[in-house]
Amino acid sequence: MTPDEFRRAGHAVVDWIADYWATLERRPVTSPDPPGALAAALPAGPTEHGEPVDAVLADLDALVAPRLTHWQHPGFFGYFPANTSGPSVLGDLVSSGLGVQGMLWATGPAATELETAMLDWLADLLDLPKRFRSTGSGGGVIQDSASSATLVATLAALHRAGGGRWRRAGVDRRYRVYASTQAHSSVEKAALIAGLGEQGVRPVEVDPETLAMDPAALRAAIEADLAAGEVPALVVATIGTTSTTAVDPLPEIGAICAEHGVWLHVDAAYAGAAAVCPELRWSHAGLEYADSYCFDPHKWLLTGFDCDAFWVADRASLIEALTVLPEYLRNAASESGAVIDYRDWQVPLGRRFRALKLWFVLRWYGVEGLRTHIRTGVALADRFADRVRADERFELAAAHPFSLVCFRLQAGDEASARLLARVNATGRVHLTQTRVSGRYTLRLAVGSPFTTQTHVDEAWELLSAAADEE
Amino acid sequence: MTPDEFRRAGHAVVDWIADYWATLERRPVTSPDPPGALAAALPAGPTEHGEPVDAVLADLDALVAPRLTHWQHPGFFGYFPANTSGPSVLGDLVSSGLGVQGMLWATGPAATELETAMLDWLADLLDLPKRFRSTGSGGGVIQDSASSATLVATLAALHRAGGGRWRRAGVDRRYRVYASTQAHSSVEKAALIAGLGEQGVRPVEVDPETLAMDPAALRAAIEADLAAGEVPALVVATIGTTSTTAVDPLPEIGAICAEHGVWLHVDAAYAGAAAVCPELRWSHAGLEYADSYCFDPHKWLLTGFDCDAFWVADRASLIEALTVLPEYLRNAASESGAVIDYRDWQVPLGRRFRALKLWFVLRWYGVEGLRTHIRTGVALADRFADRVRADERFELAAAHPFSLVCFRLQAGDEASARLLARVNATGRVHLTQTRVSGRYTLRLAVGSPFTTQTHVDEAWELLSAAADEE
Repeated sequence: MTPDEFRRAGHAVVDWIADYWATLERRPVTSPDPPGALAAALPAGPTEHGEPVDAVLADLDALVAPRLTHWQHPGFFGYFPANTSGPSVLGDLVSSGLGVQGMLWATGPAATELETAMLDWLADLLDLPKRFRSTGSGGGVIQDSASSATLVATLAALHRAGGGRWRRAGVDRRYRVYASTQAHSSVEKAALIAGLGEQGVRPVEVDPETLAMDPAALRAAIEADLAAGEVPALVVATIGTTSTTAVDPLPEIGAICAEHGVWLHVDAAYAGAAAVCPELRWSHAGLEYADSYCFDPHKWLLTGFDCDAFWVADRASLIEALTVLPEYLRNAASESGAVIDYRDWQVPLGRRFRALKLWFVLRWYGVEGLRTHIRTGVALADRFADRVRADERFELAAAHPFSLVCFRLQAGDEASARLLARVNATGRVHLTQTRVSGRYTLRLAVGSPFTTQTHVDEAWELLSAAADEE
Repeated sequence: MTPDEFRRAGHAVVDWIADYWATLERRPVTSPDPPGALAAALPAGPTEHGEPVDAVLADLDALVAPRLTHWQHPGFFGYFPANTSGPSVLGDLVSSGLGVQGMLWATGPAATELETAMLDWLADLLDLPKRFRSTGSGGGVIQDSASSATLVATLAALHRAGGGRWRRAGVDRRYRVYASTQAHSSVEKAALIAGLGEQGVRPVEVDPETLAMDPAALRAAIEADLAAGEVPALVVATIGTTSTTAVDPLPEIGAICAEHGVWLHVDAAYAGAAAVCPELRWSHAGLEYADSYCFDPHKWLLTGFDCDAFWVADRASLIEALTVLPEYLRNAASESGAVIDYRDWQVPLGRRFRALKLWFVLRWYGVEGLRTHIRTGVALADRFADRVRADERFELAAAHPFSLVCFRLQAGDEASARLLARVNATGRVHLTQTRVSGRYTLRLAVGSPFTTQTHVDEAWELLSAAADEE
């Protein structure tokens, strides 16, 4: 494809996306088709001769789009949001066009330096502790997701707990990881990957009211393990748990980690973005104890998936855990020690130029625009929660400090499950479920820049009407 | 940003990329600026008020582009190629615009089914063994890179070697991984991540002529470890090593793995794409022994980074190793058992809709176009190798079955290192180095669709002129 062919086809694809966004609201949020519908409609193998882009766009409309779950739909309230925005798509488009593979500073000086700068900008924006800035001994890096951030934090923690021994001999002691029963499943997955097994994870009880980690239970678990000859390596605390956005008490947890020399990783995947607003920074109190921290601009900060922002207070411990240097990657810049080679900060070797989408987003919206986005989400969630609170058929299942509201029918689990199925079947909204203290609970997560008061009100009307059928 | 604002700005960004590609040849391949040049030119923090896209594009031109290593430049011959193409960029643009997060079938039915179909199409295109097709017990998935493919293969291998024990108790035995001394550094990195330590990796000697793994040495290593009570878990064989594109003898290696029940992963990250051409499929002989296989369409098959295609013969073993299912991800489709949830095939939870770029590439080029691309690369490498062979100051350092040529000056390591520095300093080409049997060796890797005979001839002229200065 020549540059001029690309120019013509590129305009058509941009128009396709603009039209998709403009008409998104009219589509059902999820597809009614059963599994296999798209697979059955595709040819069995690749075509012998090339086809024009128009043919592919026609099939995109006819075959693909009707079988999507539309994450950018204003009625998508499932999981946590994974919202993109125009400037993010444009920054990513530049990245695709440049096709830079920034594994080393030398293979993409601007890709590396812009990423370091964007992570410092984000640290400013969230008012993170100074120790995470690249100007000191810390620094930030983009990971694909909070799962990968948890994994690299686990590896750095094992390296610190094991001294040189972990790199040399691997997991030859019973290293232990602690997280609350409400922590994300990626903590267990990271422990499995790192060779600790399911037995390597200690689920720590939570306060039954707040659903936040109980520091006394954490202390007891660590001390019992120490007494049994096990090696406490890592505590993962959460700001905004996946189930209900509970906030673990970092000041108490951090003091326990400091006392026992255990690595503290703070997972703020969704709720970290809230710290853009000064009035929501209470959730980050105690973060100065953390050895590492992450949040996902791709969840609630208008940056397309994948973009997890991960910081360490001591970058040397991360790099020492992960570096492997073959001859074919040696270069003068790396050997000077004056540059960052981000390949040593992550699991894969290669990496895209993802800082561009952050740069486009931060510049297009500015601090002001990002704060407005977060405040809008919180206000919409508050409005929805007020409706729930005012209706005696319903109850709130947890506090809603950010933009997620957890609620259920007073009539019990089965009624709540039927309610969810009924509103999702309308195709107008999409909500998901969790269990809170064992009880079936619906989750409504606000995040899309396309979502307005009208959409949240419609969600409530649909829920209220569906509850009438109980 | 409204859809119409996106439309206008999107056209401008598409034009920017088309212009970048059209003028790429006039830019120096690498930046002459020292570390810190971009960092110093950026503001210290984010702007309070939003800025227009034009302002960002102006800085892209003034600040970023001059500090890039231009991987798509026709004179870029470093590492292995990581080439994109117009259709790949367009497919990725659609993915960014849709913003679908396909962790589960339910969160992106079309994203999941198109990915399964594209991996089956690729298996057809490369004539891979039937056992890798999704229609049987196997199947394919897109990983970010071959590093991550090696990691998940390592985890599946540990799960198989350990039975239920590995998931439960982790690395509580001395599991061992085998790969040739020429294997990619990601084998060691995966072993570190998986908790095996550096001691967990057994480097297997190669034939000094072909640089391919010596099967007798592999057998001896496995048998010695078994005798010592260690647990051979994984052999990684390479089709096209990073240093010189050596091809390990799969039929002999596979038989040894089968005899001892050891998982065989085949890493064809770069050279796998060659199997698009029937006359290059000799390199894949013996692949029917493999438990898993990967190659990178993002290297030599015109698909932008990141896109590693990874297959397993028995998908259940991979899923059982990696699955973790919290309540908030439960859904009817998953519970029906009728769908693939790709989150269980990879390290992270979330995932982009990367199958779109493969779909655009496979349809735009067709089988015919992809074969032409591979054959062009091989022919250009042959042409360059002929020049080297015909010049008595130079020598070839290894065979060149694909599109990488390894060569050096007869005058020795220091002269070869000076030669590399001199040609790279011209800014017209970029080559990298390796060591072959201890000797400093230059690598010229062809892969860009923009690279023609003229560029390869220019590279030779520059090298020849630089050699005159020795």
